[in-house]
Amino acid sequence: MKLSDINLLDELEKVELAELRAVFRERKFVKGSGIFGPDHNENLVFVIARGRVRVYLAYEDKEFTLAILSPGDLYSTHSGCHIQAFDNASLWVTDVQSVKRCMTEVPLFTRTMIRVLGHILQNAFSIIGSLAFKDIYNRLMDFILREANESGVPENGGLFLKFDMTIEQLAQVVGATRQTVSTLLNDMVRSGFMEKRGRGEYFIPDPEELERAVGR
Amino acid sequence: MKLSDINLLDELEKVELAELRAVFRERKFVKGSGIFGPDHNENLVFVIARGRVRVYLAYEDKEFTLAILSPGDLYSTHSGCHIQAFDNASLWVTDVQSVKRCMTEVPLFTRTMIRVLGHILQNAFSIIGSLAFKDIYNRLMDFILREANESGVPENGGLFLKFDMTIEQLAQVVGATRQTVSTLLNDMVRSGFMEKRGRGEYFIPDPEELERAVGR
Repeated sequence: MKLSDINLLDELEKVELAELRAVFRERKFVKGSGIFGPDHNENLVFVIARGRVRVYLAYEDKEFTLAILSPGDLYSTHSGCHIQAFDNASLWVTDVQSVKRCMTEVPLFTRTMIRVLGHILQNAFSIIGSLAFKDIYNRLMDFILREANESGVPENGGLFLKFDMTIEQLAQVVGATRQTVSTLLNDMVRSGFMEKRGRGEYFIPDPEELERAVGR
Repeated sequence: MKLSDINLLDELEKVELAELRAVFRERKFVKGSGIFGPDHNENLVFVIARGRVRVYLAYEDKEFTLAILSPGDLYSTHSGCHIQAFDNASLWVTDVQSVKRCMTEVPLFTRTMIRVLGHILQNAFSIIGSLAFKDIYNRLMDFILREANESGVPENGGLFLKFDMTIEQLAQVVGATRQTVSTLLNDMVRSGFMEKRGRGEYFIPDPEELERAVGR
């Protein structure tokens, strides 16, 4: 998913930043290949120049996707995540010393970093909620996907959904407190799986992505 | 835990930033009181001026501490977390519009934000690891705490610990793959529960904090 309209790539292409661009080395990766692992011992930062890149955590046979990053996004190799080429991808890679210079000279560099970190953090919170409350989360997801498939109104490739019940009633349906259901719904909105339109009204931009997220 | 030595508070106290300081309102909270909840609908940012503040996720009766923030740290009310006064605390609070100005005029503001987000993200990853791999994580924590209490060498209020085995052997003990044990150990180091000193050598700065983190 694209996280913003202001693009760091356009910014870095500016003529006056030609000297700064020299701190980056371009590296290309084939779709599906692993780029960096959690044991990678260089502390590098990369800007995605082309293609998408998946950031995920893995333990034994379980994987948790934290973000699909797009051109203009940036991230670090030193966070304990797996980084995988989601398409054929090209990255601009640099070391942490040079990043300090980028942060000083290109305010958008820092703002992009905050935006990506914030996005990954929201997904991490959502994963924690789903793990800590696996049963309730699954029941809630099941309910939302069923309602969406039965009575959702197609719109721009997504589904518009209106719950014909209060949060209290929804909480009764899935067997949880109002507070937990409210938190889990907020998690899904913050992670970008749903957009809140009004009281009990949600838009699901990519129902298949939501199904994948709950491991269906 | 203190996250850095450069302090945003000192920076904001500078004479030339007097005008900027006016965008903050000071608010005081009594130890233990809730400051903001996940349903808080104002999008605010706060700098901690005095005392410590706990950031945590809560679902039904489960709580997951993401950070104990100290004076000079900053965070947002709009992340879906609970924010609680860990001591009697005083915060400088401002709205998101003013934050944009702070980010432009005070580079340390942005850098502090990245540092705090990165720290919370590492703790979130660690929580995901512990939830996804509860059994293995618990066995690993049990083993580390037992070894630390039996053969750890006291040092500055903490314990220095030397594993007399390889990661492969440790993985055999807790019944997991080498990769998972390595990832979970890295998680603990990144979250600040342990410091890696050398091959198989760790320092646990606050054994009680580690015991609390595993819910003992």
